[in-house]
Amino acid sequence: MTAMTREDVTAQILTAKRQAGLTWEGIAETIGMSPVWTHSAAMGMNAMPADKATALVTALGLPQEAALLLQESPTKVWEQTIPTDPCIYRFYEIVGVYGPTLKALIHEKFGDGIMSAIDFDMNVTRVENPKGDRVKVEMSGKYLAYNAW
Amino acid sequence: MTAMTREDVTAQILTAKRQAGLTWEGIAETIGMSPVWTHSAAMGMNAMPADKATALVTALGLPQEAALLLQESPTKVWEQTIPTDPCIYRFYEIVGVYGPTLKALIHEKFGDGIMSAIDFDMNVTRVENPKGDRVKVEMSGKYLAYNAW
Amino acid sequence: MTAMTREDVTAQILTAKRQAGLTWEGIAETIGMSPVWTHSAAMGMNAMPADKATALVTALGLPQEAALLLQESPTKVWEQTIPTDPCIYRFYEIVGVYGPTLKALIHEKFGDGIMSAIDFDMNVTRVENPKGDRVKVEMSGKYLAYNAW
Amino acid sequence: MTAMTREDVTAQILTAKRQAGLTWEGIAETIGMSPVWTHSAAMGMNAMPADKATALVTALGLPQEAALLLQESPTKVWEQTIPTDPCIYRFYEIVGVYGPTLKALIHEKFGDGIMSAIDFDMNVTRVENPKGDRVKVEMSGKYLAYNAW
Amino acid sequence: MTAMTREDVTAQILTAKRQAGLTWEGIAETIGMSPVWTHSAAMGMNAMPADKATALVTALGLPQEAALLLQESPTKVWEQTIPTDPCIYRFYEIVGVYGPTLKALIHEKFGDGIMSAIDFDMNVTRVENPKGDRVKVEMSGKYLAYNAW
Amino acid sequence: MTAMTREDVTAQILTAKRQAGLTWEGIAETIGMSPVWTHSAAMGMNAMPADKATALVTALGLPQEAALLLQESPTKVWEQTIPTDPCIYRFYEIVGVYGPTLKALIHEKFGDGIMSAIDFDMNVTRVENPKGDRVKVEMSGKYLAYNAW
Amino acid sequence: MTAMTREDVTAQILTAKRQAGLTWEGIAETIGMSPVWTHSAAMGMNAMPADKATALVTALGLPQEAALLLQESPTKVWEQTIPTDPCIYRFYEIVGVYGPTLKALIHEKFGDGIMSAIDFDMNVTRVENPKGDRVKVEMSGKYLAYNAW
Amino acid sequence: MTAMTREDVTAQILTAKRQAGLTWEGIAETIGMSPVWTHSAAMGMNAMPADKATALVTALGLPQEAALLLQESPTKVWEQTIPTDPCIYRFYEIVGVYGPTLKALIHEKFGDGIMSAIDFDMNVTRVENPKGDRVKVEMSGKYLAYNAW
Amino acid sequence: MTAMTREDVTAQILTAKRQAGLTWEGIAETIGMSPVWTHSAAMGMNAMPADKATALVTALGLPQEAALLLQESPTKVWEQTIPTDPCIYRFYEIVGVYGPTLKALIHEKFGDGIMSAIDFDMNVTRVENPKGDRVKVEMSGKYLAYNAW
Amino acid sequence: MTAMTREDVTAQILTAKRQAGLTWEGIAETIGMSPVWTHSAAMGMNAMPADKATALVTALGLPQEAALLLQESPTKVWEQTIPTDPCIYRFYEIVGVYGPTLKALIHEKFGDGIMSAIDFDMNVTRVENPKGDRVKVEMSGKYLAYNAW
Repeated sequence: MTAMTREDVTAQILTAKRQAGLTWEGIAETIGMSPVWTHSAAMGMNAMPADKATALVTALGLPQEAALLLQESPTKVWEQTIPTDPCIYRFYEIVGVYGPTLKALIHEKFGDGIMSAIDFDMNVTRVENPKGDRVKVEMSGKYLAYNAW
Repeated sequence: MTAMTREDVTAQILTAKRQAGLTWEGIAETIGMSPVWTHSAAMGMNAMPADKATALVTALGLPQEAALLLQESPTKVWEQTIPTDPCIYRFYEIVGVYGPTLKALIHEKFGDGIMSAIDFDMNVTRVENPKGDRVKVEMSGKYLAYNAW
Repeated sequence: MTAMTREDVTAQILTAKRQAGLTWEGIAETIGMSPVWTHSAAMGMNAMPADKATALVTALGLPQEAALLLQESPTKVWEQTIPTDPCIYRFYEIVGVYGPTLKALIHEKFGDGIMSAIDFDMNVTRVENPKGDRVKVEMSGKYLAYNAW
Repeated sequence: MTAMTREDVTAQILTAKRQAGLTWEGIAETIGMSPVWTHSAAMGMNAMPADKATALVTALGLPQEAALLLQESPTKVWEQTIPTDPCIYRFYEIVGVYGPTLKALIHEKFGDGIMSAIDFDMNVTRVENPKGDRVKVEMSGKYLAYNAW
Repeated sequence: MTAMTREDVTAQILTAKRQAGLTWEGIAETIGMSPVWTHSAAMGMNAMPADKATALVTALGLPQEAALLLQESPTKVWEQTIPTDPCIYRFYEIVGVYGPTLKALIHEKFGDGIMSAIDFDMNVTRVENPKGDRVKVEMSGKYLAYNAW
Repeated sequence: MTAMTREDVTAQILTAKRQAGLTWEGIAETIGMSPVWTHSAAMGMNAMPADKATALVTALGLPQEAALLLQESPTKVWEQTIPTDPCIYRFYEIVGVYGPTLKALIHEKFGDGIMSAIDFDMNVTRVENPKGDRVKVEMSGKYLAYNAW
Repeated sequence: MTAMTREDVTAQILTAKRQAGLTWEGIAETIGMSPVWTHSAAMGMNAMPADKATALVTALGLPQEAALLLQESPTKVWEQTIPTDPCIYRFYEIVGVYGPTLKALIHEKFGDGIMSAIDFDMNVTRVENPKGDRVKVEMSGKYLAYNAW
Repeated sequence: MTAMTREDVTAQILTAKRQAGLTWEGIAETIGMSPVWTHSAAMGMNAMPADKATALVTALGLPQEAALLLQESPTKVWEQTIPTDPCIYRFYEIVGVYGPTLKALIHEKFGDGIMSAIDFDMNVTRVENPKGDRVKVEMSGKYLAYNAW
Repeated sequence: MTAMTREDVTAQILTAKRQAGLTWEGIAETIGMSPVWTHSAAMGMNAMPADKATALVTALGLPQEAALLLQESPTKVWEQTIPTDPCIYRFYEIVGVYGPTLKALIHEKFGDGIMSAIDFDMNVTRVENPKGDRVKVEMSGKYLAYNAW
Repeated sequence: MTAMTREDVTAQILTAKRQAGLTWEGIAETIGMSPVWTHSAAMGMNAMPADKATALVTALGLPQEAALLLQESPTKVWEQTIPTDPCIYRFYEIVGVYGPTLKALIHEKFGDGIMSAIDFDMNVTRVENPKGDRVKVEMSGKYLAYNAW
């Protein structure tokens, strides 16, 4: 029986990427998906459709079995309730500071409901600015209305 | 001595808004700021410049003392480490699932650093979509590079 | 300015219900909704449409202002991360024991996605059984597929 | 002495299932039990009667020793107080939002007591719906009345 | 509308007991129940049948409304995950040290299942002993077998 | 130098017991101690006197070194503040619900003090009952009075 | 009915002490007990015998009812799992750093058991020292051996 | 490169001590230090001066490299915020119950400040007592006054 | 008896400061202490010597009783284990990121010991910088060497 | 594929440093950076520019691959929310006690904003003092003003 795990696949992807001097943008372009989704799926936070999994495995020279594992629905786990890495913490802080505001404005614009984190996409871009370039993060999620029955 | 607190001002704003049938979009337009920032400052998560505080107090018919309190630098507190409200939790979940991806792409595009949550702005819009309208959230924060010394 | 809060409305509902000797089933029937949703909205865990809020306020003899508050989108808060009440804990335990099973079967039947807790309904019934009557809980939520982009 | 553990058996089941291209529904049918219970017992969250353990071991071609381990009473452990996986979290959220409602209605229909999570069964089905198929989860647990002595 | 709460009733019971110089044993005897159950129901951790609630209210000279509240199904809450009071902590410690042993012996004597904490009773007695008197605690709960389906 | 640890001894005991088809009751009888204490000491939650350690090691055919380790004073550790296993959780729940009652009755019967969890013994028995057999747990601990100085 | 609580008595003691310019040493001497025990009982962490409660109430000019409350067995609660006050934290730190050492030496000197925190006394003294005076804390607790049965 | 770690040294000390049948008192006498400090440093909670490290390594027949590691300044870590072992927990309990008392008496005897846990020593002795021998723990720490500037 | 508490004094100071349009720098200068210490003592995180307490009370026009309370040794409490306010969190983050570095360099420069947080002072200054002004924080604490005995 | 990790590099640095008898000051001087930054980057809490990574690898005789890993942007993780090591805890305590003061003075000197922990540097020095040498820690971070939009 095989012992290859999802963690093995992630490690193989990272090593192959480092050795080949690739970028996430480049890998994403190769398989025809966005960089955000590509990184996320490579790290085991999203499942890949079969063709994308095969394309990734081929591009990085991984064993075929890896393509099967990349298609499985991963259990999404994060171990730090409050992230310590400063780059990630800042997003946690934004949710803490602006979470009630996001809620109030979604309710004002749509009614009683939420933004889906499942039917969701996101991208990150660099915006030039004379006072210092800026990170732009755009999220888009389907509005879901609460049911009343 | 006066006993008016920041919490009193928030409560007065909410009551005045409900009684006058206003929206956050409308209030924001009245004081010439964005809805996100206006709600956030009204809730005590941001400090208001003097002219905006005065404009808000005038628009809602609050006592002048409220304008002073709105200008003070608030201590930003959130009591739930993990928010329970579903609308806010989804944003926490996005940070958990996509946090490492945001970090990887920021590093790829900018170098070793972070997106500021202080020199930061955000807006929320409704995007029509035949499969169901979508919530669009755009964040923009200044890139800050780690110092080496 | 008024000082009536959502908590006040909940307390008024509970008192009126006790004094009139009503049941949740009866109240739900009066306003034409299910008992689960009716109790949940009365407790401040769901927002009421205007007609239902008015019907409830009329049925229980509450002040008209309560109808406005019942229509506001409530912030859903639970204070005990792990509930202590034995009746509620058992459901937490079911999620702990059977959560991975629910995930595996949803993935097997639908693909990579989740059951919505927003586009969702639930009902509780009593099932007679010679070995002891049973509680039947039926949940139904829309399947949401993860997006790939 | 043997070193086979319950975790080994779980891993062997998952690998055999993947290599043979089986489904939980199919495995469950083979051993004559429900898919929910079969997955749960295979994952080490329920003990198997001897005949079911033997049937499973035979069907998947596992060593006989695995059948003994599948019959042992497992210690049920979940490591995340609040589950992070979105598919499982939604059920946690339902308990948070609707837990007090479930309690109130059980008390109204039965008296002072709880729904057992031990004398309990559950099933998951796919319900077609033109607005999007729905996940249906049905739970049934014996009502247990509090003792007074 | 009345504002009497379950906490009010508990406070009235404690005050009446102190002023009348009663004991829990005595109160329990008066209403014909055990001391453990009587104290527990008086503290809001169990609901009282109507006749017992009336008997208690009469014995202590409380208002009739208290009898209604004593019959409601209380939400059982404890605020300290790990109790600090040394007398209570020792029981928590016993569960920590001997919990796996209780589980192993219940499984050995009964099969895969648990001792119910709902269909349950307990009593406390003083046992004379020349080396120092001992506290004897006897618990009895119905065995519940896990269901397989 | 030897590398045998207390965990190794526990694992050897469990394997030997399974392979020999023994029960805890039987092992306890063999070494002339109670089942509760025998299981607890075998699991590393109590230290064994030399003669009992030797008797256990002989009965199960373990290496002599194991007898030395069984005599060492173990550090008692439990990793889950709130146990998740349903069989153990029910005892935690009993402490939460009835802890204040145990305290009140101990104080009423003995004075200001506690029941020792050190000078302590416990046994578990099966009690036949036409409505379903019951688990009986009897605890006995020395009363310890608070010192005043 | 009276509404005086244990917290009221503590507050009255502190105020009376401040207004009369007393010290804990002085109060302790007046009632013939140690300063440690006197402060602890005054703060609601120990119960007072009747004569000491009367002596304290008389010395500070408190109402007689306070003497009854001082004799009740208090529930000992501390709200900060890890104390923040630096003076108290240092003792927590000592338990963290030297706890395993205390355990090892108690076992070496006495056998398998513990130092009681109930049959316990403690005193604090100032020791002059040319390099800076030192705080001396002496604890004495009865050794309790684990039971084997 | 060497792979010996501080944990290796601790394990070697424990094994050598067990095999040679030594006590902490005996080891401490051999190296001319107190038993408390000797155990603490051997367990990696204190750093050893070079001569003491050499003496310990020689006495127990450990490799010379161990002496270097014993001199390094260890990071003091304890993993259980609230210790579960009953022998250690009792000291945690003492800090919880008597912490405010220690603070009040230190302030009364010295002024606003603390007892140092760094310039600190402790010893444990057995005190014979006809009612049962007692554990005596004596702590001495330098008084440190808060600075005002 | 008086009911003035330390929290009352803090509130009075803040109100008087706001109404008089004072700054912490100005208040500190008035009483002849540093701004850091002055703010800290005013907030109840340090005790004031009698002359400074009197000076503060006089300068702000507070009642004389406040001066007594300002001299008491406060219990230092912070309620958020991890601070949420971004300005304070950044300092927590610095301790997380650079804590091991501070430890390593203190050990390299001084030996095995710590920097005191009691015999400690700190100041904050603004440093002009063409790329953006900088906050400078200087801390100074007495080195304390671990004792060996 | 290579299996060298960032943890391997850290371990190699520590071993090489110990074997060569180097200090952090010395290593920092060799690569022309500060000791604080050098230790931090060596421990995996900061990324190194290519020339510094090469200089470090050369100075310590590490494999070239290590230089690549030292340039990667590390995920900054600390596992103890509240550090237990006394040397690090004291800095946590300073943030707890003086955090609100730092916030108040930054706001007074700069306006509504924070000190950056990213555009940040720090150094540690030993200051001789007849009453005992002192640790001086100087932090400097860019002031960042909150945005209003």
